[in-house]
Amino acid sequence: MRILVQKFGGTSVANLECMKQVREKTLAARAKGYKVVVVLSARSGDTNKLLALADEYSRDPDSAEVDSLVSTGEQVSVALFAMIMKDAGVKARSLLGFQIPMKTDQAHGKARILGIDNEKLTALLNDYDVLAVAGFQGITECNRITTLGRGGSDTSAVALAAALGCECEIYTDVDGVYTTDPNMCSTARKMDRVSYDEMLEMASMGAKVLQIRSVEFAKKYKVPVHVRSTFTDTPGTLVTQEDSTMEAVLVSGIAYDKDQARVTLRDVPDVPGVAYSLFGPLADKGVVVDMIVQNPSRNGKTDMTFTVPRGDLKKTLTLMEEIKQETGAAEVLHDLHVSKVSAIGVGMRNHSGVAAKAFAALRAMNINILMISTSEIKITCLIEEKYTELAVRTLHDAFGLDKDSMLG
Amino acid sequence: MRILVQKFGGTSVANLECMKQVREKTLAARAKGYKVVVVLSARSGDTNKLLALADEYSRDPDSAEVDSLVSTGEQVSVALFAMIMKDAGVKARSLLGFQIPMKTDQAHGKARILGIDNEKLTALLNDYDVLAVAGFQGITECNRITTLGRGGSDTSAVALAAALGCECEIYTDVDGVYTTDPNMCSTARKMDRVSYDEMLEMASMGAKVLQIRSVEFAKKYKVPVHVRSTFTDTPGTLVTQEDSTMEAVLVSGIAYDKDQARVTLRDVPDVPGVAYSLFGPLADKGVVVDMIVQNPSRNGKTDMTFTVPRGDLKKTLTLMEEIKQETGAAEVLHDLHVSKVSAIGVGMRNHSGVAAKAFAALRAMNINILMISTSEIKITCLIEEKYTELAVRTLHDAFGLDKDSMLG
Repeated sequence: MRILVQKFGGTSVANLECMKQVREKTLAARAKGYKVVVVLSARSGDTNKLLALADEYSRDPDSAEVDSLVSTGEQVSVALFAMIMKDAGVKARSLLGFQIPMKTDQAHGKARILGIDNEKLTALLNDYDVLAVAGFQGITECNRITTLGRGGSDTSAVALAAALGCECEIYTDVDGVYTTDPNMCSTARKMDRVSYDEMLEMASMGAKVLQIRSVEFAKKYKVPVHVRSTFTDTPGTLVTQEDSTMEAVLVSGIAYDKDQARVTLRDVPDVPGVAYSLFGPLADKGVVVDMIVQNPSRNGKTDMTFTVPRGDLKKTLTLMEEIKQETGAAEVLHDLHVSKVSAIGVGMRNHSGVAAKAFAALRAMNINILMISTSEIKITCLIEEKYTELAVRTLHDAFGLDKDSMLG
Repeated sequence: MRILVQKFGGTSVANLECMKQVREKTLAARAKGYKVVVVLSARSGDTNKLLALADEYSRDPDSAEVDSLVSTGEQVSVALFAMIMKDAGVKARSLLGFQIPMKTDQAHGKARILGIDNEKLTALLNDYDVLAVAGFQGITECNRITTLGRGGSDTSAVALAAALGCECEIYTDVDGVYTTDPNMCSTARKMDRVSYDEMLEMASMGAKVLQIRSVEFAKKYKVPVHVRSTFTDTPGTLVTQEDSTMEAVLVSGIAYDKDQARVTLRDVPDVPGVAYSLFGPLADKGVVVDMIVQNPSRNGKTDMTFTVPRGDLKKTLTLMEEIKQETGAAEVLHDLHVSKVSAIGVGMRNHSGVAAKAFAALRAMNINILMISTSEIKITCLIEEKYTELAVRTLHDAFGLDKDSMLG
């Protein structure tokens, strides 16, 4: 039995016309002989309407009830899709989280998938040619409905493909993964292939093509993920395992993230545990700290600088004022007008000089680097926000991404 | 553990204000020491919107998918209700058909309840003080969502009360069951008690207070059903087993049904099986035939007259034309302007002369009786529609229903 998982987002099922386009994609896969598992999101806007309803009714909506409430969005999508699939003469049915069952832990609103009953699913694929599966939702051991968090339908799809040992097609409104944001850099090029690790770094930098947890899942279970467009038939980008051709490329993409703010606590007494006294409370408040720089100590004092998402800045500054009092630090500084720019590539692992090349390119444009952080396959620079576009284009050209280097 | 089932319809949960009124009723029962199972319908209008969606998407929507689709209406209600119950400090949770589980057969759209896991429900009532149960929905053996048909939430509520061995309160926009329609007869009186059989006859005559299947269920499992108003605190009407005080009353209510059409097939050859040749095909088309009169045969021919709901008249006439051809009957006649008026009372079982009294009262008003049918506890007359109000008032007075005869 040849199986394919296809996933479509909320805009792809927003109305009957859109849903018929989705049906064409599924029928095309049927025509190639595939049994198709179609994972759908809620119709565009439905999830937000349901969340608004929860907020209207309760000042602090119970998270388990919110999950049961919002999961109706996907339930509506898959029932309608199964109907129109049957109208096209295909043996199809809808499948909800509890019917699969898509077992998750009990972390309502951001549940993690524990397992999928592969046998049951295979038996259903013997009876039906198309299964319309509600994305985003699962079921706990106690039979309560959970949701996987925003964008969770991607994860549902990859998890189903992992359980079935097949490829997963993720349909979106762009036609693949680009070397950088095409809206920012006209020479951006669609990649034919990208490694899981590179995709992870890009997703964590705000590239919105794939949800980060779905990529982690795909990497863990080696699921080939084909990112492609709902509106064209051209091949998209295959997210897959690294291979030697990928490693031959130094940098495969440039990502950026403007949703950043920088905070500095000046002249903190440099005693053991000072980092924890700052970042422990931030973690407790759910603030994700990204880049962290600690200056070398002078006179027993140091400066701690870090970045947070802009939405968390207010919360962060309130906390830092408290910590300033407690620790006797000199002052709290912040800067809203910063952004991160990263060069990403698995090829960096085996090459030196990539960082130096990036710094040289930015200097040539007189772009001042405020902070630097590096990983095995990524170099990130914090810069003034106004230079974001220039920096992205500069790095894109510097690493030759405008040319099809994978084949050249 | 003292348990009470409360059921509220769609208008009672239409918006936050309404739902808060429902909460007051539940909190009042809590204050009396009850654990409360609250059965809710979809918010007013939601079910129709979902059904319209199915019709928009498919020319012949799959019934299993329609059930999964429309069941989201109740899912939304109970999640919201559980939230506001928790906001009031009550240990509450929502419960869907598959979570109870409310097991049904596979007749999608009009499923019948097969059983409720009483142990599981009791265990949940140990953990929670209020369970917000989605009415109208169940689950098949194969784990597919079913619905019980329009008004099915009444049946859900009574079935839960039967499983838990407790009373069931059905809240509605009227304050009980009346001796007849108060909009039609100003002397109509709210009954304190009414028997299951009387309620069944009234429901079958279009009294919209209780869904007929819920009354059948209540009768079968001897569940006391208290019909009362969402908007007042006055006691309503208790639907319960017959007792001697009920039998002392000849007629306890007058019901009517204007949704009737009369069809006559003239001069049908009166051969064995002629009735089946008419009513078999009608049953196959799902047309519910009510009153049937077959005239004594003359010259080997007879007239067959019967009534059907007006919405089924077109379908019925098409069929009758075919049967006219097949059987060689003379002609098909029909009359849209007819209605049924009934006198109902368990006391009739042991008294004669009730029919005669009804006929005399109608004759005194010059109301012509077109057809008559009787049961053990009901006399029904088909009359011209324009006389409906007059006939109802005449019979109501003739049987002394304007006076509180149960106590007098």
